[in-house]
This record gives sequence, C-alpha cells and structure tokens, in this order.
Amino acid sequence: MGQIHYNAWQLEFKQPFGALQAGNNVQFSVKVDCQNVTQVAIGVTKLDENTVFYPLTQDENEPGKYTGEIKITTSGLYHYYFRVRRENDAALYLGHLHGGTGKETTDISKVEPFQLTCYDRQVPRPEWYRNAVFYQIFPDRFANGNPHGEIDGKKPNTFLYATTADRPMYIYDENHKIARWDFYGGNLRGIIAKLPYLKRLGVTALYLNPIFEASSNHRYDTNDYLKIDPMLGTEEDFKTLVTMLHENDMHLILDGVFNHVGKNSRYFNAGHLYGEQTGAANDKNSSYYEWFNFKHYPDQYDCWWGVDDLPTVNKDNPSYQQFIYGERGSVLTKWNDLGVDGWRLDVADELPDDFLRAIRRNLDRYDDRILIGEVWEDASSKVSYGHRRPYVSGDNLYGTMNYPLRQWVINFLQGHSDPIKAGEDLLTLVENYPRNFLLDCLNNLGTHDTERILTVLNQSVPLVKIAFALLFNLPGIPCVYYGDEAGVEGGKDPDNRRYFPWGRENTELQKTVHYWSDIRQECESLKEGQTGVMVAGNEVLGLIRYTEDSATLLLVNRENQYALVRDLQFMHVPASLQQAIEKRVAGLRMAPFTTRFTELNVISVMADEDN
Amino acid sequence: MGQIHYNAWQLEFKQPFGALQAGNNVQFSVKVDCQNVTQVAIGVTKLDENTVFYPLTQDENEPGKYTGEIKITTSGLYHYYFRVRRENDAALYLGHLHGGTGKETTDISKVEPFQLTCYDRQVPRPEWYRNAVFYQIFPDRFANGNPHGEIDGKKPNTFLYATTADRPMYIYDENHKIARWDFYGGNLRGIIAKLPYLKRLGVTALYLNPIFEASSNHRYDTNDYLKIDPMLGTEEDFKTLVTMLHENDMHLILDGVFNHVGKNSRYFNAGHLYGEQTGAANDKNSSYYEWFNFKHYPDQYDCWWGVDDLPTVNKDNPSYQQFIYGERGSVLTKWNDLGVDGWRLDVADELPDDFLRAIRRNLDRYDDRILIGEVWEDASSKVSYGHRRPYVSGDNLYGTMNYPLRQWVINFLQGHSDPIKAGEDLLTLVENYPRNFLLDCLNNLGTHDTERILTVLNQSVPLVKIAFALLFNLPGIPCVYYGDEAGVEGGKDPDNRRYFPWGRENTELQKTVHYWSDIRQECESLKEGQTGVMVAGNEVLGLIRYTEDSATLLLVNRENQYALVRDLQFMHVPASLQQAIEKRVAGLRMAPFTTRFTELNVISVMADEDN
Repeated sequence: MGQIHYNAWQLEFKQPFGALQAGNNVQFSVKVDCQNVTQVAIGVTKLDENTVFYPLTQDENEPGKYTGEIKITTSGLYHYYFRVRRENDAALYLGHLHGGTGKETTDISKVEPFQLTCYDRQVPRPEWYRNAVFYQIFPDRFANGNPHGEIDGKKPNTFLYATTADRPMYIYDENHKIARWDFYGGNLRGIIAKLPYLKRLGVTALYLNPIFEASSNHRYDTNDYLKIDPMLGTEEDFKTLVTMLHENDMHLILDGVFNHVGKNSRYFNAGHLYGEQTGAANDKNSSYYEWFNFKHYPDQYDCWWGVDDLPTVNKDNPSYQQFIYGERGSVLTKWNDLGVDGWRLDVADELPDDFLRAIRRNLDRYDDRILIGEVWEDASSKVSYGHRRPYVSGDNLYGTMNYPLRQWVINFLQGHSDPIKAGEDLLTLVENYPRNFLLDCLNNLGTHDTERILTVLNQSVPLVKIAFALLFNLPGIPCVYYGDEAGVEGGKDPDNRRYFPWGRENTELQKTVHYWSDIRQECESLKEGQTGVMVAGNEVLGLIRYTEDSATLLLVNRENQYALVRDLQFMHVPASLQQAIEKRVAGLRMAPFTTRFTELNVISVMADEDN
Repeated sequence: MGQIHYNAWQLEFKQPFGALQAGNNVQFSVKVDCQNVTQVAIGVTKLDENTVFYPLTQDENEPGKYTGEIKITTSGLYHYYFRVRRENDAALYLGHLHGGTGKETTDISKVEPFQLTCYDRQVPRPEWYRNAVFYQIFPDRFANGNPHGEIDGKKPNTFLYATTADRPMYIYDENHKIARWDFYGGNLRGIIAKLPYLKRLGVTALYLNPIFEASSNHRYDTNDYLKIDPMLGTEEDFKTLVTMLHENDMHLILDGVFNHVGKNSRYFNAGHLYGEQTGAANDKNSSYYEWFNFKHYPDQYDCWWGVDDLPTVNKDNPSYQQFIYGERGSVLTKWNDLGVDGWRLDVADELPDDFLRAIRRNLDRYDDRILIGEVWEDASSKVSYGHRRPYVSGDNLYGTMNYPLRQWVINFLQGHSDPIKAGEDLLTLVENYPRNFLLDCLNNLGTHDTERILTVLNQSVPLVKIAFALLFNLPGIPCVYYGDEAGVEGGKDPDNRRYFPWGRENTELQKTVHYWSDIRQECESLKEGQTGVMVAGNEVLGLIRYTEDSATLLLVNRENQYALVRDLQFMHVPASLQQAIEKRVAGLRMAPFTTRFTELNVISVMADEDN
C-alpha cells in the first residue's frame, strides 16, 4: 500500500465520474498518509500542451485529505497525476492510465497519468436506438427470397456456390490476387422474407454490410453509390424492406464506405465497366478525375492499404464532399430520404474530422438518424496519422463499433483475465467514454471482420451463451452478427462469412438471444444505467447496471465447476446498492458455465436499508 | 538419284498397296540401275524377330527389274529393306520408315527399313458409321435444357459460373491442386433441345465426353458407372436422348473410362461419399479392395499419372473385368442394352490387349456397335510399356481418334510442311493403316484435350474453313468438337472447354460445316475411297479420294495470295485419274485461302481417255 490514496472510479475521490463536458468543473480528493507533506498538487495536461499544476487544499475536518476543483473549458484528451511534495523526502507521484487506483512512484519519469476525457456535448439517444437490438447481415450470405432461389443480376466472371452449405473460399490467381469473386446469392428479398424470424428473435434493427452496386461479394468496393446492387435487388425491393421494417417498428442502418471506391466504379472505371469515357482512370477530363490522387496516370494511385482494387478518394475534394453529404442529390440525402435510420461509417479513421462532422450535419437535418464509426480501439484516445481523433466530442459520431468490449468479453471467457482484472478493464472503458457515447456504441461479439464467437470460444456453446448474456448486459447497443445465434462457426475471413444455416440452426443459442432480447426491452437500467462491477472470489464476475430507480445484476460463472459467491468486492457501485446485492447473493452456489440475472428495485432497496 | 528405284506407294513396285492381311502374298519389284549386280534381295523383319532375306528374281523382259512375292502368315508389325549385292563394290541398301521412295546407303547400320503393317482381319464398317458426321460434346459446356436454366443435382463444394460467357478456369488451393470443381450446368436435356440445331448442321452422331456420376466437370473420375451424373440428368433423360437420336437416324457413342475411377467413387470411396463401409480405401473387406493396388493402405496406391484423384484399377482382376464387360449386369451391357451405338475408350494405351478384345466381344453381341480408342500416335506401330499394341489387327478397336491427322492438318495450314511434305506425310499414315481401320478412325481438328482449331490457326477464320474442308475430305469419320463450328476460341485446357456461345455464333463457320456435311453424304468416294495426293507447285495441295466408280478432288490454296495450279505431281493416284484431273485443273487460278472441290465420274474419265 502506498501513501497516496485515490480511486478515479469512486465519487469520494473524483466527481463527476468519468468523462467531463467542457465548461464544467471536476472535483478531486486524495488522501495522503504521510507526515512531512509540504504541498499536494494535481498536474493536468491537455494533449500536446504543457502540464499545469493546481495545488490542492487540505481539508479542515480530515487532515490527510486534499481537495480541489478544476474547470475544464475546452474539449479534448486530458491526463492528470498527483504530486505530493515532502520535506526532506523525494516527492511522490500517483497516476494510472488504466484508471481506478493509482500507481505511486518517486520517479517522475515513471508516472503514468490518469486519463480524463473532455467532450463538447452528449450525443443524442434516439428512442428507437436506445431500445434497439441490432442484427448485422452480410447480405450475400443471409437469405435468398426469390421463389426458387434464383439469383438476379449475376455478375460476369464470378462464381456461385453450388450449395449454401459450402464453405466460403477466396478464388485466387497465381499471384494470390482474387481471380474471381464468389457469391451465394443472398438478397434483399431474402431479408424481407426473414423479418418474421428476426422479429421473433427480438431483433429491432438491422445493420447491413454494403448494398450498393459493387464488384465483390462484400461490396466495400462501391461501383455506384446511388444504386442497389442488382444481385441484391432493386430500389423497389429496398423501399419495400424499409417500409416493412418501419411498419414493424424496426430500423435500418447502412454501411457508408466513403474512403475509397471500386477500381471498376462509375467514378474510377479502370475496367470500362461503365463505358469508355466517364471515369478518372480512363479520361483525364472526367469530372471524377480530381477525386483521386494519381502518382502515375492511370495505373499508380492512392489506394486503401495498397489494395489496388480500392482507389482512395480525396476527401478534401469539394465535388466529392458534395456528392457524399451535400444537402441535395447527395448519396446520404438520397438514402436518408428513402428512410434509412443511420449509418455505420467504414474505416472512420481514414475520414477527416470535418468530413465526419459534415456527414453528421446531413443526418441532423432528419429526426433520429444515428452515426456509428468503425474504430477498433478506445475511441476516446484514438490517434490516427499523428492526430487525436475527436470521435467522442459529440459533434460527429454517436458511437463506435465497440471492438474493445468484444475483446473484453473474449479475454474474460478465455480466462485471460480474472474477474478483478476484467472488472478494472471494463471500468477503464466506461470511465473514458462520455456516458451517452458509451451507451450509443454498437457492441458485438463478432462481425464480418472477426472470427466467429463460437470458434473463438473453442466451439463451446455454454460459453457463447455467457457471451450473449454479457453482450445484452453491457453498456451499449447489442448487435448480433447473423448466424451467431444459429451456432455458425467460422475462422478468419472468408470463413466468418458462411451462409446462414437455415434448417440446421442451433436452437439453444437462438433461445438464448431471444431470452436476453426480452430482458433488454424490459430493463431500463440495461439501456440507461451506469455500469458497476462486483467480483466474488476468483471465479464469479458480477455486472451491475443501475439508475436511480432500478438495478440489474448479471452473475457469471465462466468456470467448468461450481462457484460460491463470496468475498465480494465492488467497483463503481453505490454503497446502498452494494449492501442490497450482498444480501441477495452472498453464499449463492452457481453451476458451471452459468449466468444468473437479477433485477433489483433500487427504491425498495433504499427502503430496506432504512429499516 | 540413287541406283535402286522403288516407291512403296506405287503398284508397279509393291502390290497390294498398304497394310496386308495375314495369309496373303505381297509382291515387290525394284529397279536397279547398275551393272555389277550379283544378288537383289529383300530383308523382312517381324518386330522383335530376326531378319529373313528373300532373293528377288530378275525380270526376263526388263533386265534391271527384280521381283518377288512373299507370303505373310501372321499379323504384326513388319519392316523390310532391299539389299543389292555387287561384284567388287559395297552392297547397296534401300529403305525408308516414312514409306514412298527409299533412301539408299552402303552402310547397313544406317538403313531405315520400310514399314509393313499386317493385320488379321478388316474391321467392320457399319452403315451408320461410314455415313456419320460426328459431333463431340463436353456435356457440362454445351446447353442447359431446363426451362429456366436451373441446374439439377448441384454438387456440394463446387462452383457454378455466373454466366455462360465466363471463361473457364481451374480453382486451385495453395498447393496448386484443384480446390473445387467448376460447372456451367450443361445437361442431357440441353443436348436433346439442340438436336434440331445439330441435325441442321449435318451432324448424324454424337460422341459425349463422360456422363456417368463423377466429382469433376470432365467426369473422367467416374464415381458410379451405372448412373447418369445427376447434374446431367436422369436415366430417363438418357433414354429420351437415345430415342430421339435414333428416331432421327442419329447415333451415340459414349466415353468409356475403364483405366481408373474417382477417388470418391463408390468403389474406392476415400471421401466416404458413398457411406462408411463400401469402398476399397475405407474397408479392406470391401469387395472392391482387390480392384486396386495399394502400396500403403489406404493412402498410397497406383493412380493415373500420379493424380491421386484417379486411382488406377487392376484390369487383370476378374471381378473388375466382369463388372466392365461381362455378358450380364456389366457396365457395357447395361448401356449397350439401352441403345448406345459404340464407345470411345479413354487412355486405350493403359488397357491390356485382352481387355480390349473382351470389350470388343461384348460389343459384337450387338449389331453395329463401334469401338474407338484414344491413341495419340500412329496406331499401327504404337509401343506402350515395351510392348507393341495390336490396335490395328482387327479383333479389338475399329479405329482410333486420329490425332496424327489433326497434326497433319495443322502442320500444313501453319506452313510447317510444304505440299510435297504434306502429301508424303499423309500417305505414310494411309499406307500404315489397314484400309477399314483408316476409314473407321474418328478424325478431329480438336478435342477437349487440345487447343481449339481457331486458336491454333491464329484466329484465322479462312484457315479454319480450309481445316474443315480437309476434315471432311480426309479418310476417316469427321468429328466436329462442339463450338468449333461456332467460332469458339480457346487455348489449352480448361480454356478449350468454354460454354457454347448460343446467340453469338460465327455463322460463316457453321455454314462451312453444313456445306461439307452435305457433300460428305453425297460422295461415296469420301466415305470409301482410296486416298491420293496431287501437288501443284509449292502452293497448292490436292486431296484425291477415289473408288472404281468415282473420285473427288479438293484443291487447297492455304496462302494469302493467288496460286496457279501447275507442275502437277501425283502420289498414289492411278494414271488415268491423273490425266483426267490434269485436264480439269491445270492452269486454274485460285484465290487466297480458298478450296475448290470437284467430283469426277471415273467411268466417264476412262471413257474420255479412250477417245
């Protein structure tokens, strides 16, 4: 134990909890357990600026306690640590990038400051979105809704899988480049046909991987932003899908792929797929020419990660900007006008801040359109191309795809982190993100870019059931990757994109998703609550969500043996709730690989306490 | 010019022309143009036996002429050369493996003897076959006869081409082995639907690449010899095809693939496609176990050319023999009973002589069933595995796929041989083969195993037109490889197996085939005639077919310039016919890339001569 006592996750030390809105004050308290103190100060650094020290004041009633209040005026990424100067002794420093309690040192070069996220404004929480249970569909691989499974708009020089049970594979040429694209033939009508299935499952919103005309099966190589890919259907089919969804109180977000286009797109047109004279790569006078950066015309150009199928677009080009987010006639306006409820932005890291803000402004002209970014790391501190990204500031993204939380689930279920470590890791993320941003993040256990959760968890259905329980209890919006609820396995891309196993589903997992979807709808605390953690011994993790009125507790025994709920430790849980939970669960015996869910009425808990 | 004069292709030197039936006499004459002759003899060697010399007798009326008559009692491959002993001078020798005139030498080690083929009996010439114009179909690639182009019986883990205009490709894994098979979905109903097209073209018989159940698109990896591949259709479809063909006076031969089976066949069953306990590779007690030669069970075994997808069957195994050609319940009997008119035997070189004879005996129980072997070289002298194959002896094959004649056409049209060389090369083959065997050979300009003729001839449609003219005028049965008449291009396998371009055909080539099919039907000499050659200068080749009653002449100018028919030389053409032809064609001027076809009534020719 050190001499400086502080815990960023307890209100007695830091208030308010977590990220701070610019213009507000934050209060700090530390307790110092040594005699020769001459000064206690907090050093605060805004990213790329100098550290400013604010002396803390000794508490009149509690001698070892020092407090101070700081006003943060501008949003950004801040760090802070405490310095305790002592007479005749080296100064002590305390910090911890991970949050929570600090690490004490006398060596200033070793101080690892705490993070303090400061944002401009909270993102909105549209009613439909906060209540949503999402389902991600890779459209080629979900369902074919044509009467006899016909495939429309087959693309020349591509292959079709003979059966939907075939395993996906890439078809390479000698140089290990894609020789031809492979399709199963899922389409929009298939999604429409399966809406009753999805509704029964508890799904209320869809996230579709790209659906605009493209050459590949993943369609991240957009060829025409204004057209539904003919294999997937027509614009009429799309309108029908939107209408059917909305009639069922369901919603739809699309994949916005605005960093690059397809090499054979209408805009680049390297392969003359769109005639002879219209594209940047075959006509320097093309109106699209200025969208791209050629190093050597026409065969060397900026492209995404060196993939020459995906020429990068110059996002600073005003004509391209207008095309994507202009008020009239733009890509966003077209699809928003047709009723799209939001967008997931592909490779958000590649899109300039102002580009994101402009997209947001386009959406803000409509009611309740959300904007999620593909960001793989902690979005509050993300630096790309040497520049800190203001994703959480409130004026651009609503949230991100919460890959860190997916990794957190996996780490815990694979046994890489014990319950204490898992609890701390979770609270780090919870602390760093502005409240609404955290709650607006789109959580997943897997996507088209990851291995399938059943495969990651070694084909253990019991562990996947726990993973789903966590997904639906964690802060943020749950999103089920198509087929994960049906027991689909799959390693890395393309194996993670198998066709949905209609008629061969794992019904146990389907029931699990259905169960948690129902609970999610019923429990306000799962949608709005703060996040706390309870740890019981070395085996049981408790995930606590609480509002002023209600609370829920999810207990998880991830072990293949019985576990006793004992030796409880809490993180970021109010004392009264701690006591109520203790009464409820202490001594409980949990079977191997099980979860236990409890809803608590916080008001009655308080009443109990008073008695 | 040497001192010994002989020409194997002229009756004044050797009679009868060409191959000899065992038990018959052959007469030889040579003219010797030197004074000190002490003996003229002919040395005759049967393959692998010692040379026997027969002295020739000096002609009483013509002093330099020596003659003799030899009886050949047993069939086989013979060679002969002439020896002229001289007083005070080294002996002279004359021979030439190529036939025709000889090469003279005094060095016995350099003598290259003439070939004399001796056979047991002439093969039959069924009426339907001698009149046939064949069409070879690779069934996956010709036509789909289902109402909406549906594909029946799709095989798991295979790919389907998105459009029939796609170019064929192999789909390899990292080790350059086939990862999955690729299909277009042609089927038997497609062939049935296109019978009117084929009939209009002049086709009277079909040769189908394998149609029995298999894993690959080429189906040379038979999985079940008793079942039509479900992608191609049902046994009912097959019966319908046979019925429709016969009702239209058309005929059908199948591809008999009896050297090896598929690794996943019912017999070998390595992949458990046919259950767990029935095949040689997964059950040593399987009745099929003895069909195969395992070096290490179950993963090392004899297979075709090291392709482990194709385990070789032990053709000496009585159970396998009965299965293939037994009188009752065998593969051949089943399909012969259903009306198949003959078989093309895949890799005939790999099938033992007795196996071929037994197949022939099965067919001989029916009327007019033909048997063609896949042999790529001159069938009269083919040695495989150190053993000369008696293909031409008359008791096994009717003929072979005449790849040497295809090469002859290509050599000539590519300019690799001038008309003289072309004429000599042709007569070598004509001389070596027994008459009926030559006429029963199935000629082609390309097959599933070669590049397409249009591609070989550098996309020159005019040259392909000449190639078709030659195909229909040469001795043997013409067989058009599907799509060659439609202008399909294609390099090596798999490019030579593109889908038929319905709606995009080259109609000029279709008309050419139609034209020559008609002529073929009208001209008896094209079906039965002997083969002679006329050479005019260095530009024009004349192909002459003649019987006692009639003759035809095809003149070919393969050059891109006008050619004059002059300086005529004839090979293996009777003098009276030579004169008649001379009258008709001398001085003719032929346009570039043209043929000129003339039918001559030999009787009237003779009458003309008498005047």
